[in-house]
Amino acid sequence: MSDAAPAVTPALARFARVTPRSAIPAAVRHEALRALVNWTGCAVGAARHPSVERALAALAPFSGPAQATVLGRTERVDILHAALVNGIASHTFDFDDTHLRTVIHPAGPVAAAILALAEYRPVDGRTFIDAFVIGVEVECRIGNAVYPSHYDVGWHITGTAGVFGAAAAAGRLLGLTEQQMAWALGIAATTASGLREMFGSMCKPFHPGWAAKNGLTAALLAQQDFTSAAQPIEGKRGFANVLATARNYAEITERLGETWELAQNTYKPFACGIVIHPVIDGCIELRTAHGLKAGDIESIDVDVHPLVLELTGKKTPQAGLEGKFSVYHSAAVAIIDGAAGETQYSDARVRDPQVIALRDRVHAKVDAALHEDAGRIRITLRDGRVLERFVEHAIGSLARPLTDAGLEDKFRGLVIPVLGAPAAARLLDALWQLDASADVAALPLLCVPAEATRERSTQRAD
Amino acid sequence: MSDAAPAVTPALARFARVTPRSAIPAAVRHEALRALVNWTGCAVGAARHPSVERALAALAPFSGPAQATVLGRTERVDILHAALVNGIASHTFDFDDTHLRTVIHPAGPVAAAILALAEYRPVDGRTFIDAFVIGVEVECRIGNAVYPSHYDVGWHITGTAGVFGAAAAAGRLLGLTEQQMAWALGIAATTASGLREMFGSMCKPFHPGWAAKNGLTAALLAQQDFTSAAQPIEGKRGFANVLATARNYAEITERLGETWELAQNTYKPFACGIVIHPVIDGCIELRTAHGLKAGDIESIDVDVHPLVLELTGKKTPQAGLEGKFSVYHSAAVAIIDGAAGETQYSDARVRDPQVIALRDRVHAKVDAALHEDAGRIRITLRDGRVLERFVEHAIGSLARPLTDAGLEDKFRGLVIPVLGAPAAARLLDALWQLDASADVAALPLLCVPAEATRERSTQRAD
Repeated sequence: MSDAAPAVTPALARFARVTPRSAIPAAVRHEALRALVNWTGCAVGAARHPSVERALAALAPFSGPAQATVLGRTERVDILHAALVNGIASHTFDFDDTHLRTVIHPAGPVAAAILALAEYRPVDGRTFIDAFVIGVEVECRIGNAVYPSHYDVGWHITGTAGVFGAAAAAGRLLGLTEQQMAWALGIAATTASGLREMFGSMCKPFHPGWAAKNGLTAALLAQQDFTSAAQPIEGKRGFANVLATARNYAEITERLGETWELAQNTYKPFACGIVIHPVIDGCIELRTAHGLKAGDIESIDVDVHPLVLELTGKKTPQAGLEGKFSVYHSAAVAIIDGAAGETQYSDARVRDPQVIALRDRVHAKVDAALHEDAGRIRITLRDGRVLERFVEHAIGSLARPLTDAGLEDKFRGLVIPVLGAPAAARLLDALWQLDASADVAALPLLCVPAEATRERSTQRAD
Repeated sequence: MSDAAPAVTPALARFARVTPRSAIPAAVRHEALRALVNWTGCAVGAARHPSVERALAALAPFSGPAQATVLGRTERVDILHAALVNGIASHTFDFDDTHLRTVIHPAGPVAAAILALAEYRPVDGRTFIDAFVIGVEVECRIGNAVYPSHYDVGWHITGTAGVFGAAAAAGRLLGLTEQQMAWALGIAATTASGLREMFGSMCKPFHPGWAAKNGLTAALLAQQDFTSAAQPIEGKRGFANVLATARNYAEITERLGETWELAQNTYKPFACGIVIHPVIDGCIELRTAHGLKAGDIESIDVDVHPLVLELTGKKTPQAGLEGKFSVYHSAAVAIIDGAAGETQYSDARVRDPQVIALRDRVHAKVDAALHEDAGRIRITLRDGRVLERFVEHAIGSLARPLTDAGLEDKFRGLVIPVLGAPAAARLLDALWQLDASADVAALPLLCVPAEATRERSTQRAD
């Protein structure tokens, strides 16, 4: 088998190194900006979460020079630790992007690695976006080649495929030779890790951070000619054979440099499991169309895919996190707040009497004929009217992507509580204009809360 | 299967935390010293190898405070990087210890982690040895549970099992609670990595260093309550199910705390593949017994296990590394130098005319009836005499362990070229007396070459 395997490592190394900017379509470059807006919002939004606090408390004593920003915080750490912690933050809310075919969350490993690197080694926005697109491509194509057997065995593919994307993107920015790029992919292969058993613990968001740090480490080692195997992915004892029971190398090599997996990226509008999205979507649409208030509503009946009640059938959630597993709570906040962001899944919101009162009037029943991203909502008003809405594809699916404006709303919901509204607006502007940036290092500085920004300005004035 | 699996993670966490010193027999404590003598010699000996040079060049710019020693060098780095680099050095010559049943090289991941930690958080020698013994036990028992299927799939078991040993030993020294220790093992599980495809590249010695760093990282994260899964090893998507096709949990739990895998540890006397050891052993014995010189010898005929010619049949090696794959070169240097250390596998020695002349008079033939650690040597002298020696078990095997004096010879051969003879002697004394040490941090300072030692003394005097 290994003898017959195509030389995918050299092919990916060459692709990562030589693909010209002109090969990347404008729509894909715009998708890169969308992915970065979404990713930055998630990372800044989770900046004060215990997963981030604890990782920093544990590792800061061993950090190198203050080279890079911890997004949404005042600490600065070395670039490897920044990649780790920012990668952890970005997946903490499970609100980052999804490559639906492989369930990879593509931005985390790649963006966390190269955004940290950009604070150490100057890079302009265009070059940065090239590297991001190429990193995501390497990551998702390796994922495509081993999915689903690799995931079924029990690997958290965002970690295991992500490290290749981080290595390729960082390697491109470091200007690795083709041999060095192949070594970087090899070091990535031999550090690829992350078990699905960890789901539900802090180790789940740890995985994209770990992939970011390890991919960056791989590229830095390869830059110094730290050698690796010749066939780290396709060899008999290589990644694709050891970590998967089936593999299709054509997914890596066919039309490489012509099609772009980033075009298949999706963004969750709501901060909960994707299965409840149709219900939330439909409730918000009815609310907006009819100016609904909780007091107008007699009852809410929803028909849902079987998975919805299996995964999110919790009738009386007691804590914010439990709210994410309650289609009842989700429908209630969708009507009352017109949103289902992190704010709607706080402990306070789950215990709010008005939310509870409406939640108790939500009824759900399974309709096995529905697709996973479909749902039916029927709202009976106190005045006797019945409002109905069938959602064929929930917002955020590939068929109905979140709009740029929707991404901005989501971004603001995540970032304003951490940075405040003016800083959030400046950061959002900078992200959309990244293609024109002369130095990407300016971007993470916009992610530092105001107090520290003031301190830094003062120090500079001295 | 996962439902029926015994709770091995809690069992290991409890074992690592509560096992009292009194449970560890004196012979096992002495074996710990032997393992540490061997390991330190290997790490110091390889201090200037390109694998170490390149790893340091790549990662030093991101190192934290100068907390820990890079063995055999003047640089000081943070403890995580020290664990990584010292772990790499110690496996670079493939000369470290071997747990024959699993082919784990046990000392590397554990010693590299806790020796670095000892420079950050004071620990006496006895407590250090306790942790080392317990780390090796956790590592080898997890190895026993998944070997051979885990290795056959393609995992480099020293990396994948080693990270658990490093986490357990570091966790014990950090005083983790039982829950924290279980989390540390969980973080270790989700960072376990290392592919056999890497053999022959710098990524092979990278694996024990990576395991040391990651195990130490796991313990530090767990100390801050960074959470992991409840069943990271035995869960359905846990280590033993995802990284192996068969597993036997009894290997982990049975007589845990009563038997000691360290007692099964072995040490290579010669710096080459273990299959040629019987030939080298027999040649050195005949040389010593008869005062042989190359000029006395007409021919050397060896009967060997089939693997010897398969793996080490190179007749005319051109470089030092190739010499390790030549039973002919190995027999020649064994006669001429009475040794087969790193010095005997240098480029210069492989190209030496006297060595080549004798090498060409060595003839090898397969005897399928021989065990792997047996060999027959017949030397025909120019005066017509024939000397013969049958080696039933090569020196360094479990049946004929390397003596303490043999370990000392090996240690000196590795360390003197780096530190000089007086410093090597002081270091060796300190290792044998580790049990009585009040502060293990004194040990790595003895591994710093003289120039830096002088500099540091001067600075202290200031």
